[in-house]
Amino acid sequence: MYKKEISKAVINRLPRYYRYLGDLLEKDVVRISSKELSEKMKVTASQIRQDLNNFGGFGQQGYGYNVEYLHSEIGKILGLDTKYNMIIIGAGNLGLALANYADFERRGFFVKCIFDIAPSLIGTEIRGITVKNAEEMENYIKMNKVDIAAVTVPKTKAPSIASDLAKWGVKGIWNFAPTDLNLPKDVTVENVHLAESLMKLSYRLSGNDIE
Amino acid sequence: MYKKEISKAVINRLPRYYRYLGDLLEKDVVRISSKELSEKMKVTASQIRQDLNNFGGFGQQGYGYNVEYLHSEIGKILGLDTKYNMIIIGAGNLGLALANYADFERRGFFVKCIFDIAPSLIGTEIRGITVKNAEEMENYIKMNKVDIAAVTVPKTKAPSIASDLAKWGVKGIWNFAPTDLNLPKDVTVENVHLAESLMKLSYRLSGNDIE
Repeated sequence: MYKKEISKAVINRLPRYYRYLGDLLEKDVVRISSKELSEKMKVTASQIRQDLNNFGGFGQQGYGYNVEYLHSEIGKILGLDTKYNMIIIGAGNLGLALANYADFERRGFFVKCIFDIAPSLIGTEIRGITVKNAEEMENYIKMNKVDIAAVTVPKTKAPSIASDLAKWGVKGIWNFAPTDLNLPKDVTVENVHLAESLMKLSYRLSGNDIE
Repeated sequence: MYKKEISKAVINRLPRYYRYLGDLLEKDVVRISSKELSEKMKVTASQIRQDLNNFGGFGQQGYGYNVEYLHSEIGKILGLDTKYNMIIIGAGNLGLALANYADFERRGFFVKCIFDIAPSLIGTEIRGITVKNAEEMENYIKMNKVDIAAVTVPKTKAPSIASDLAKWGVKGIWNFAPTDLNLPKDVTVENVHLAESLMKLSYRLSGNDIE
């Protein structure tokens, strides 16, 4: 429906709109003007109107936005009206941090199990989620619906694991390994490169401003 | 020197150049053409030349780039020729994952200590880094050089902790809490919003392409 029409910059802002609207909902705010929203989010009101116009608007001139409606519509655009089954590869601290993050479930992302190769971890549980032997991964993926795999393994192992995941039918890879993955076009990769984030911080700390 | 002249998009690409050049260095590659680099990085060669021209070029027509030199120069632009002292607030799985990531040190980011409020964690160690009582934080920051604080506390607590950090003189905040921080202008905030990253993945999984 919105295919290829919406720019990456707009999409990058949508989760932030969604988060702000969710915060407002928690505070029982019913309606908000683009001006108020813009002050909260430190984005211009015209930017907000422009962004939302990409999806047909949602606001009525002079009435502002209905918070619950806008939250739910942006959620639909982001695909959050779907339930996703997620597995986590790697039961290190990062994998466990993701497994522990109950907030993901509220948005429809359900962590079903964690895979690791360390005998000391296999069989342990976190929040009721079992750490399974990585050798069972192929079979598990073939027998269960797995939409997203969070890859938290070292960078030397990530490319081959990701290729296997893709081969076994996983369409969404949430990659935390500091390497890029080259996967078939029908597989979506979202990278979280922590070291690169830290470098952007150091760039600005070292006296450089970003426009 | 480069103040306000370089666009955010270019800066966002620099850490990735740095990572690729580091990988090439590890493989003892001495020289690379923008064409080869572009094939590896899946960026056009002209994009690479344009990006690097922002900083004066570095390449000689027909000779390509000297990998070590380019890696070191981009490192300098990113401020990686400086040593940063980092503290981590929150010794949960995410805080421990960051403390465990030895790769940060190679880039000049040294985790000096972790702060938490849980009595069961205070006094424990990870990779030789001690978890201290959060009550000691103010004094620690005033007595030691702290350049960066990684904030891995719940979103309800993050804003006030970040304000305190800024007040005590910390100029760089690496924020993992799912909330925006409003801090004085001289404080640099770099956000890692995991839930938003997951939403971008779900957006694309739900049948939408990003340009």
